[in-house]
Parts: sequence; C-alpha cells; structure tokens
Amino acid sequence: MSEKKLCYKVAQKIFETENFASSIGIEMVDIDDGFAKVKMEIKDSMKNGNSTCHGGAIFTLADTAFALACNSRNIVSVGQFCDISYVKPAFIGDTLVASATEKYLSGRTGIYDILVTNQKFETIALFQGKSRAIKGLVIEEKEVS
Amino acid sequence: MSEKKLCYKVAQKIFETENFASSIGIEMVDIDDGFAKVKMEIKDSMKNGNSTCHGGAIFTLADTAFALACNSRNIVSVGQFCDISYVKPAFIGDTLVASATEKYLSGRTGIYDILVTNQKFETIALFQGKSRAIKGLVIEEKEVS
Amino acid sequence: MSEKKLCYKVAQKIFETENFASSIGIEMVDIDDGFAKVKMEIKDSMKNGNSTCHGGAIFTLADTAFALACNSRNIVSVGQFCDISYVKPAFIGDTLVASATEKYLSGRTGIYDILVTNQKFETIALFQGKSRAIKGLVIEEKEVS
Amino acid sequence: MSEKKLCYKVAQKIFETENFASSIGIEMVDIDDGFAKVKMEIKDSMKNGNSTCHGGAIFTLADTAFALACNSRNIVSVGQFCDISYVKPAFIGDTLVASATEKYLSGRTGIYDILVTNQKFETIALFQGKSRAIKGLVIEEKEVS
Repeated sequence: MSEKKLCYKVAQKIFETENFASSIGIEMVDIDDGFAKVKMEIKDSMKNGNSTCHGGAIFTLADTAFALACNSRNIVSVGQFCDISYVKPAFIGDTLVASATEKYLSGRTGIYDILVTNQKFETIALFQGKSRAIKGLVIEEKEVS
Repeated sequence: MSEKKLCYKVAQKIFETENFASSIGIEMVDIDDGFAKVKMEIKDSMKNGNSTCHGGAIFTLADTAFALACNSRNIVSVGQFCDISYVKPAFIGDTLVASATEKYLSGRTGIYDILVTNQKFETIALFQGKSRAIKGLVIEEKEVS
Repeated sequence: MSEKKLCYKVAQKIFETENFASSIGIEMVDIDDGFAKVKMEIKDSMKNGNSTCHGGAIFTLADTAFALACNSRNIVSVGQFCDISYVKPAFIGDTLVASATEKYLSGRTGIYDILVTNQKFETIALFQGKSRAIKGLVIEEKEVS
Repeated sequence: MSEKKLCYKVAQKIFETENFASSIGIEMVDIDDGFAKVKMEIKDSMKNGNSTCHGGAIFTLADTAFALACNSRNIVSVGQFCDISYVKPAFIGDTLVASATEKYLSGRTGIYDILVTNQKFETIALFQGKSRAIKGLVIEEKEVS
C-alpha cells in the first residue's frame, strides 16, 4: 500500500474517533504526508458577540487541519503549543478552508503552518502548531494491511 | 450604576448576541473589570482523535473568558493574536474553568492571561490573548442607564 | 529610481543609524521588497551557559532580517510581537543566515517568517515577527531622489 | 547547603561560562528557585534603526532571566520556544530590569513569564519562555558540597 493511502486511512480513523470537528461541520478536502486541507461553512450557531464568526470555531478548523497533518505519517502526535493571528473577520455564510503544511519535522518535534482563507481567497487567519510525537500508531499494522 | 454592574451588563449582552460558546455549554461564573471566569463540562461531543477533549473546545473556553475580560470596560475589543499551551489532557466528564486576568492595558492594546484548570485544580492549558480596541461601545449609553 | 534601489537605500540607512546588529557582526546579504537576508559568524563572545550560541544572539540575527524586511517599502515599521522556536543548537565558528519573507501585509499590520540556518543548511531556528507601520518614512523624499 | 545557596551557585556557574549577556552589561540582581532578576543599562551600542533600544538587546535581557530561572534547580534546561511583546520603546540611558517567574513546571516542561520594566517602573516588554530539561546538572555534586 502506498504512503498516500496510509495517510488517508489515518485521517479516516481520526474522523471516526473524534466528534467535535464533525459536530461543527468540518470536512476533509485533501490529505497527504505532512499536509491536510479541511473546510467548514460558517453557520449562525458559530456567531460571536460581534455577530461575526467566533474565534474558537476558526481555531478549531485550523487545529483540525494541524492534527490531520501531524498524524499523517501514522505516528500519534499531539498539539502542544498553538498560536493564531486573526487578520480579517469571517461572516455567517462564508466557507473557510484551512491548509496545513509541514514547516519543520525532526525527532519528535513538528512545526506546522496553517492558512485559513475564505471563498474569495482572502486570508482570515494564520495558525502555527507545534506537535510532539507520543507512543503508538494511529492505525495498528494489522489494520493497515 | 457601579462599574461592576456595567461589566455584568456587557457580559450579558455578549452572551445574548453570541451563539458558539453557549452552544457548547460555556457558562459565566464571575466577571469584573479586566477579569472573567467561565466554565464548561466536557461532553462526548467534544472528543478528539485521541478520545480526549478536542483542543478547539479548550481554546474556545479560554477565548470566551478572554473576550469577556477584554470587553469588560464596555469598549468593543477584538482578539488579534492568541496562543495556547496544552500541558495536560482533559477528559469526557471533566469540568474545566477558564480564568482571564488583565496583564497589560495601554491605549488600544490589551494582553490577557487565561488559565484553564480541571475540577482537581490541575492546570490543563495556559492561553495568552492580545486584544485591540476598535470603535464603539458594547452597550450604548441609553442601554446602560 | 526603481523600487529595488529604494529598499537598498532603506537598508543602508538602517545600518547607518543602528549599532547593535553591527556590533555583533551582522551583515546584509540580500534585500528586496518584503524580503531580507542577513548573516553572522558565531564568535566566542556569543557563548551561553551551555557553551553554544546564546539565544539572544540568534534572536538578534533573525530580528534584524525582520526589521529590514518590514521597513523595506520605506514606511517606518516596528516589531510588536515576535516568537522564536529553537530547534538545533548553533556552535562557535558556525555561520548563520537569516532569511525574512513577508507572509501577510494589509493596512498597518505585517507578518514575517524568518528562517535561520547554518553553513550546512540545517535549520537552527524559526522566527515569526508581527510589525506595525507607524508614521513617517525611513528615507525622506529628498534623500531618495 | 540550602536550596537558596544552590541556585546562587548555579547562576554563578552560568555567568562564568557564558559571554554574551556579560558582554552587553547584563548583571544579576536576584535569584531564587524558579525566579531570577537581571538588569542592564541601555548603551549607545544597543541602538536600533529608530535610535531606540534594539529589540535583540531587550530580548537578550529577558532571555537571560529566563535561563537563570529555568536552570535554578540545577537541572540543565534549554529554552525551546520564546515569544516577546514590545509595548513601549526603551531609550539610551534607561536601565531595564527583567524578572522571571515560574508559571508552570511539570516533568521536563517549564513555562516562565518575564516582565521587562524601566527605571520608572513602566512595562517595556512581556516575554514568555518554554523550557525543556535535558540530561545533566549545571553543577556536579562534588562542586555543590
């Protein structure tokens, strides 16, 4: 089986286990080794006190792309430190896309950049996530084959 | 009317307008000038791929405390830059509390520290939010009096 | 005069005014709009308590690339928020290069990524700087022409 | 020997080994377990392109307080991730003080807050450093006794 197929299976397993991203409508768009793209439509239920999209929902979208990318090689990895810069508000009805790319990976430490854009390709937020590999595989060998 | 009462009214207005924090069960515990405390019970719907609480839900709790604290003086303020350090996982059934304190405020720039703890008073995450005051009041003068 | 020439003049003016980067041997390698590359040889005077290069010296190198890049369009800009990830130690005798690229620029806010590598092209540190344009030009119009 | 004396010896050993902080005039003011205070006078040699104190010099002061604090228990620790918020410029002739306090410590991970103020007790910068303990002691047992 190709590596490409493995990262798909890993992403599938993560989405089967997790509930939070799914519950707010986050869907996978693309996946590769050290890379992930997800999307989300901003619904009325995501409104913040300024009637724009809540920062927590935008963060969750970016964080989901980060989690898929840093686990894509099948080594269980957790986000340790994340930061986000909100540069433009997002509005109800917008569709946001978050793309995670691997900026650095060595030993157990990974650094990922996630860009969040809207349907007009405008930048909404920039996110950086630092991951740490822990023990174990996302998919056990018997599941892989 | 005392300042204390104003910050309560501001928080009330924010919770009336917003939907996201409420939708995942976030409730206000305490509020003061430059200070806010909120809580959330971790439900099965917040599970991540490791079966612990999704980082996005923890971030949303901390971010809500941050938003209440930086708007508490009734000057509309938005979060610009946030970072979070996850130091201990949180589990389904845990109750998390996020307390926001004002670390720096001058001109339009505010810096807030938010500590997230569980029911055993263990630290789960440390969050720092940088806010920027924009034009307008959360509650108009006529609403205040 | 081309834009290219302007960013060179801006960099020259910054190096004429400043003392700190020069005093530790930082030199400009390349400059363009929103881009800068600088280098520094690690000397014994930069040793930290572990006998490797002091984080403050590596930060100063990256910060200098950031300052040149965010001022390159001749609008005076100051660094507001910076973060650095140290991923590999640097040693006495190493030559470090820091390259700054513009990740985001809109209105008065800029976000720059700076990569610090050694002579073996190994990544030593990743730096992100957020700048804010303030009033004034680095080089007055009469100086430009 | 008391713990207090050990952290002093550790700081002394760090200052004997290191050159960079000393070379720009950084001096220790106070030390305790998980705590350190250092100071520095801003000299003409620290000027940046705006004729105020270079961000690299302010960072180096804060980073030195961070290093002393995270090594104070005699377990060799390195700074992994640091961020700094510059809120007010510092000028030639000012004396800056940086105080590091331990915000979180568990296993090999420490989080430290460093506040940089000037001689008027105005906040100049806020720094956060994340450390990681590595193998070894700063002072070997025979040196301690």
